[in-house]
Amino acid sequence: MAIGPFTQDELDEIYTFAVDLGRKAGKLLMERVDQRISDANGHSNSFEEKENSVDIVTQTDEDVEVFIRSALEARYPSHKFLGEEAYAKGQSRDYLIDEQPTWCIDPLDGKSRPLDLSQLLVVAKTSQDNSTNNHNPPGTVNYTHIFPMFCVSIGFIVKHKPIIGVIYAPFTDQLWSSCSGRGAWLNETRRLPLIHNPTPPMPANAPSQCIFSCEWGKDRRDIPDGNMHRKIESFVNMAAEVGSRNGRGGMVHGVRSLGSATLDLAYVAMGSFDIWWEGGCWEWDIAAGAAILLEAGGLMTTANPPEDVDTAPIEDVRLGSRLYLAIRPAGPSATETGRETQERTVREVWRRVRNLEYSRPGA
Amino acid sequence: MAIGPFTQDELDEIYTFAVDLGRKAGKLLMERVDQRISDANGHSNSFEEKENSVDIVTQTDEDVEVFIRSALEARYPSHKFLGEEAYAKGQSRDYLIDEQPTWCIDPLDGKSRPLDLSQLLVVAKTSQDNSTNNHNPPGTVNYTHIFPMFCVSIGFIVKHKPIIGVIYAPFTDQLWSSCSGRGAWLNETRRLPLIHNPTPPMPANAPSQCIFSCEWGKDRRDIPDGNMHRKIESFVNMAAEVGSRNGRGGMVHGVRSLGSATLDLAYVAMGSFDIWWEGGCWEWDIAAGAAILLEAGGLMTTANPPEDVDTAPIEDVRLGSRLYLAIRPAGPSATETGRETQERTVREVWRRVRNLEYSRPGA
Repeated sequence: MAIGPFTQDELDEIYTFAVDLGRKAGKLLMERVDQRISDANGHSNSFEEKENSVDIVTQTDEDVEVFIRSALEARYPSHKFLGEEAYAKGQSRDYLIDEQPTWCIDPLDGKSRPLDLSQLLVVAKTSQDNSTNNHNPPGTVNYTHIFPMFCVSIGFIVKHKPIIGVIYAPFTDQLWSSCSGRGAWLNETRRLPLIHNPTPPMPANAPSQCIFSCEWGKDRRDIPDGNMHRKIESFVNMAAEVGSRNGRGGMVHGVRSLGSATLDLAYVAMGSFDIWWEGGCWEWDIAAGAAILLEAGGLMTTANPPEDVDTAPIEDVRLGSRLYLAIRPAGPSATETGRETQERTVREVWRRVRNLEYSRPGA
Repeated sequence: MAIGPFTQDELDEIYTFAVDLGRKAGKLLMERVDQRISDANGHSNSFEEKENSVDIVTQTDEDVEVFIRSALEARYPSHKFLGEEAYAKGQSRDYLIDEQPTWCIDPLDGKSRPLDLSQLLVVAKTSQDNSTNNHNPPGTVNYTHIFPMFCVSIGFIVKHKPIIGVIYAPFTDQLWSSCSGRGAWLNETRRLPLIHNPTPPMPANAPSQCIFSCEWGKDRRDIPDGNMHRKIESFVNMAAEVGSRNGRGGMVHGVRSLGSATLDLAYVAMGSFDIWWEGGCWEWDIAAGAAILLEAGGLMTTANPPEDVDTAPIEDVRLGSRLYLAIRPAGPSATETGRETQERTVREVWRRVRNLEYSRPGA
């Protein structure tokens, strides 16, 4: 299969390079963790600890991004490169992906976003814009807390389609990867989704029986109709017993929050999570995960319900939209195609969730 | 150090046996997962899938419990044994731990509890009591979804104190273990908590800067003052910006839900999570985790705030209480002992959470 200017052989070669690069970058992340675990200094009090953590994470983030960028630019000088750190430093949040073959990477996912950093940096070090709709350099969270749900994320996009994805979580040595035409994989040996012989349809009464993945995010403003309350209302609708909440009760089987959009998507691609619904993250958070999910047979569209949830077309996700709804790979039921079971689930989620307000600055 | 009738040498020997047993039991769990991944049958439609999943999980749960029980009874015939499956089959939810040396184990954590099973079993197979305060045989969730957050949990209790704990998550090959007097460990090589040179105090403004671990649980009844709404109100208080919600806004750094009480505790012991607050789980869910957390230097008390949160004594957790609040290991700050920073955090959590209603049948 050829995609854009690339033959399948060329894609295969790029994929192999990306997988190797992901592993190497993940090892860098892990070396720094090991250093911190064995480092006897810098944890003498809470303030110093957090200050140092922010410094360490910022430095790690930048170093790993430079490492990935240098490797890609040396090997593929004609490809465009967009890194999360580069966005942050340039203070630009324009959507920069165009027709060109583009690498969109996040050297360290499982950090914090906006609001948090302003809390962490007791004395702000730079004149950052801390409004919730902008992007700031990294905070800490999973990585500094050594909660294993942190990872490196490398996506390759051609003509706006994510076609190669690599996610590597070094603490637990788990690698998710995909290449258009070659399938999606866990640790290069197990095809995704893991239950795939044949892949089960979405449950007949979805979202009931589904594992629902969602994140509280960093916009914690206690505004009655703000994003936090819209999210919580949506979560409660998805969780409450069937028949409650004016018919919105979804009685999902479980609610999971990992603190990493990238890994949320990896687990949807695996089939571990059935539904992921999120607003506020950026294209570098989801480029690799979207590639893997789509190649595994998942569906990805917008988080925000359209006016007519019953009939609106279910459009492919726009990478830069900041509003995402992902459904796991699904096979046919007795009466539906796999895609139909997914689309039915999308509409059932849309019935239960509120519109979120995340725009791009200038958009 | 001697505990009850045991010398340290005897404890060390029991610990070594328990670690080996945990690994073997975890491998059994993983073998069944591998079987399912490669099994081409039984996933032809949603109903059959779930039916089979319940059967497979029930069978796995029982087999692994029998495996653990047989090994323990052969080696330590004088010790008492309490398994989660045995509780379920006997339909007894009395608290059965007494002064005797007792093993309290869960062959497979990361399953569902009550309500869910009644949803899953479209036709109930046994005359189970599905009320939310009772225990039912396993459902599915993390394990059937192959979300790696499932584990085997083995706790050893002497004179009501959990003194040996083993938690093994076979998918990612992570083992947490502890023995009184010997410390707590990840994979037997890294001492817990992971950041321990010296261990940082709880943040001065906790719960801000903390990772808060909590679970939605299975009681999803949409009753205005029911457990679900009490939990959600508590979560929102912990998450909302400082100064909001009548001073209750805690602005925690992150909210995490893994769907496994056992692993929640393992991550608190690691220092990955700072605070875990939960109601509704049982002694077999937390016995091993409590042992590991306490040996690592964590604190564990009740989830429900006392009348005077400022002055009430902070009592050690009662294993059978079904109401748990855990704080990660913490070192001293410039002005407080580590324990003082933990107790301060307990009171700050109590200020923000509601009382939950989980009793034991007959209690």
